[in-house]
Amino acid sequence: MTEKVVIIGGGAAGPKTAAKLRRESEDLKIDLYTQEDIISYSACGLPYYIENIIQNSDTLILRTPEDFKKQNIDIHLKQKCIKVDTENETVTLLDLISQNIYEVKYNTLVLATGAIPVMPDIKNINLKNIFTLRTIQDGINIKQKMLQSKRAILLGGGYISIELMEALVHNNLRVTLIEKSSQILKMFDEDFSQRVTDYIIGRNPGQVSILTNEEVIAFYGNEKNEVTKAITNTGKEIETDFVVLGTGVRPNTDFLKDSNIKLGYNGSIKVDKTLKTSKQGVYAVGDCTDNFNLVTNRYTWVPMGSTANKEGRCAAINIAGGNCTFEGIMNSTITKYFDLTISIIGISYKDALEFGFQPEYAIVTKRDKAGYMPNTGTMTLKLIADKNTHTILGIQGIGEGDVNQRINTVIPAILGKTKLESFMNLDLPYSPPYSPAIDPVLNAAQIIYQKING
Amino acid sequence: MTEKVVIIGGGAAGPKTAAKLRRESEDLKIDLYTQEDIISYSACGLPYYIENIIQNSDTLILRTPEDFKKQNIDIHLKQKCIKVDTENETVTLLDLISQNIYEVKYNTLVLATGAIPVMPDIKNINLKNIFTLRTIQDGINIKQKMLQSKRAILLGGGYISIELMEALVHNNLRVTLIEKSSQILKMFDEDFSQRVTDYIIGRNPGQVSILTNEEVIAFYGNEKNEVTKAITNTGKEIETDFVVLGTGVRPNTDFLKDSNIKLGYNGSIKVDKTLKTSKQGVYAVGDCTDNFNLVTNRYTWVPMGSTANKEGRCAAINIAGGNCTFEGIMNSTITKYFDLTISIIGISYKDALEFGFQPEYAIVTKRDKAGYMPNTGTMTLKLIADKNTHTILGIQGIGEGDVNQRINTVIPAILGKTKLESFMNLDLPYSPPYSPAIDPVLNAAQIIYQKING
Repeated sequence: MTEKVVIIGGGAAGPKTAAKLRRESEDLKIDLYTQEDIISYSACGLPYYIENIIQNSDTLILRTPEDFKKQNIDIHLKQKCIKVDTENETVTLLDLISQNIYEVKYNTLVLATGAIPVMPDIKNINLKNIFTLRTIQDGINIKQKMLQSKRAILLGGGYISIELMEALVHNNLRVTLIEKSSQILKMFDEDFSQRVTDYIIGRNPGQVSILTNEEVIAFYGNEKNEVTKAITNTGKEIETDFVVLGTGVRPNTDFLKDSNIKLGYNGSIKVDKTLKTSKQGVYAVGDCTDNFNLVTNRYTWVPMGSTANKEGRCAAINIAGGNCTFEGIMNSTITKYFDLTISIIGISYKDALEFGFQPEYAIVTKRDKAGYMPNTGTMTLKLIADKNTHTILGIQGIGEGDVNQRINTVIPAILGKTKLESFMNLDLPYSPPYSPAIDPVLNAAQIIYQKING
Repeated sequence: MTEKVVIIGGGAAGPKTAAKLRRESEDLKIDLYTQEDIISYSACGLPYYIENIIQNSDTLILRTPEDFKKQNIDIHLKQKCIKVDTENETVTLLDLISQNIYEVKYNTLVLATGAIPVMPDIKNINLKNIFTLRTIQDGINIKQKMLQSKRAILLGGGYISIELMEALVHNNLRVTLIEKSSQILKMFDEDFSQRVTDYIIGRNPGQVSILTNEEVIAFYGNEKNEVTKAITNTGKEIETDFVVLGTGVRPNTDFLKDSNIKLGYNGSIKVDKTLKTSKQGVYAVGDCTDNFNLVTNRYTWVPMGSTANKEGRCAAINIAGGNCTFEGIMNSTITKYFDLTISIIGISYKDALEFGFQPEYAIVTKRDKAGYMPNTGTMTLKLIADKNTHTILGIQGIGEGDVNQRINTVIPAILGKTKLESFMNLDLPYSPPYSPAIDPVLNAAQIIYQKING
């Protein structure tokens, strides 16, 4: 009998699993169910679609159901999984068109249900033109509204808000970002968060505001129930044409509450390094799973498109009888605000203290090429290392110079627990159009090493 | 009594040693002797000065003798070291202005005499307008001649010839590159060398020629002894206005022949990982020293400005009583030809075979950003790993996309002997403006791993 693999979820991880599984095995029957009406798209590209750098939302769709059909993979759109029964090896699905409920048998189940926005507890949060950004349809709705608007509020100071800030400023809107904690980009140290704020404000003074320690307590609307105003805890009244909630996401796992599949950090699905859940024959991949942090050696939950793709690929190899291990993550993230690259890998200085490390740090501001070359960009790097082990715990980088090149150099060094004294003399290739003779990231390592050695 | 440190050589390594040593210790007397009349300049920037991207040669000078004087470091220009006596702790110097010969005592000696061009054995090699490129004066001479010329010959197919090719093509010269072996860029595999050749020819067809398996056997000149023509072993006659010899360099160590200081690979000075030579109190840094290759675990000689800077810094720390280890190199190099980045780290596939590894490779051609973003560039990476250990042996990268970012990711993985199965799932930060969801370098690792695992 043909083995039947059922995949639940159509964002990044599910379709990746399906496609890789078919390449690994021609015999399996593969069925993918998703509650959405589009599959296999890049949610990370949505801010650039809204900005209108990408004109057509279809560009973000990597593969259509027809593409999958050619690979002998059956895609079932608008089918929502509402229950998993691991004893009988069935999933229960709700057909969102007919409202029928039915069961499907599986031999192997892959859960790839992603994450869903957390709705903050604010009065009148259900007014029109208060959006979240997760699906392509969300992106289309926000873009349509943006094109008719002059003012917007972004709630929350994470990456999505920074990316949307660029999109909206580029389209000449007046934008107010409201963050309830004391800084935007909370994973960064306060000094780096402040540098980003200064850059954003400095680039378009008068057009953007960033309010921290400020919480929206109510929205108000007009007679058509369209949002027109936000009221904050300090009594500020901010008029607006629409709002985007960037107030976080949580794993989409409510449907598992009766399944006995073990959940982990923040309600995410607990998986081992081969992407197996606690139940035989059930895998989980992507934003709905927990993650092992290779710096802190603890489980956490960091939904990322890159991790989703790697996990999907890895699970497929294992389902097909191969051998793939996904060892963990380092909370690696990068984004940009116009010409400013913003990135953090591993943990910040403040988090290093909190996790019980004995951190030391170095901050360097350097040009990204030999100083005498034209078109150099500057960058500021903050490298964090542990005084006891001399290993690197993290790096924060911001600047108009090539930050990504330096950030990437640190990642395998964290994985390999490379000591500073080795890292600082690393043989990075040098040529004036690519770097100074001693690369900025090595400068930073040299400085920490000398601080530690007195 | 004040300790006296004598440094011989004024390129990159000597001045770096002097400057770092002064920061580490205020008490030492530091004297630097150089046979040139300029110190502390970036020889690597000379092609860009010739190209006229950099207008003024002074821009390449990082620090003047006056700058050093302010740090209480005495620079002695046009003083050539002709002998070292480690028994009596003296160096013998020839004053190139007065022709006087004199001795100087040292407590610590640092040899940083760099490399000198190898002159090929070609008839009439001493004609006018046959240049080598090593010093700023060489650069000035070549640029001056280029500005009055229409045609040039570049001898040798290494990085300097590629960089000069760009400079000369940019200035509308007709350029012929002549390489006696079967490929340019010999450290690369033949397929990658060919890709570079194709790009160079394809970019300016008719304006450039690359001749391989071709050797110049004689130059001919006019009545003013200016070169006008090269004759090759296959009988080709190539008219030219000038020639630049990029036929290699060798360590500048002839003056050590009576010193008992042990020499290593190719006549370079043998140093340990703290940059000490075989003789007590004598250090050597930069292009005149040998290098330990961390991939092959053998000694080699790869003169590089970045290594010179790191070694100079490291030796200074050790002379001042600190503790710095320079573990070795990976033959990391990078250059560009207009928009094409060209880089290799570690060893090629052919060299891996030669060194007794059991290499496997993957070649991937990918865009450097998410495919739907504007302004993506493509790149081709060739990753080499060892079938037995699953560790990475090297990477070659060429392309108009961001090669450097990917190349740098491999370097600490080579150092840390990271296995492919870990490397391929590395948590590189992802955002559409910076990379595809799975980075090309991880794609390459995934492909090799699957090849090895069947």
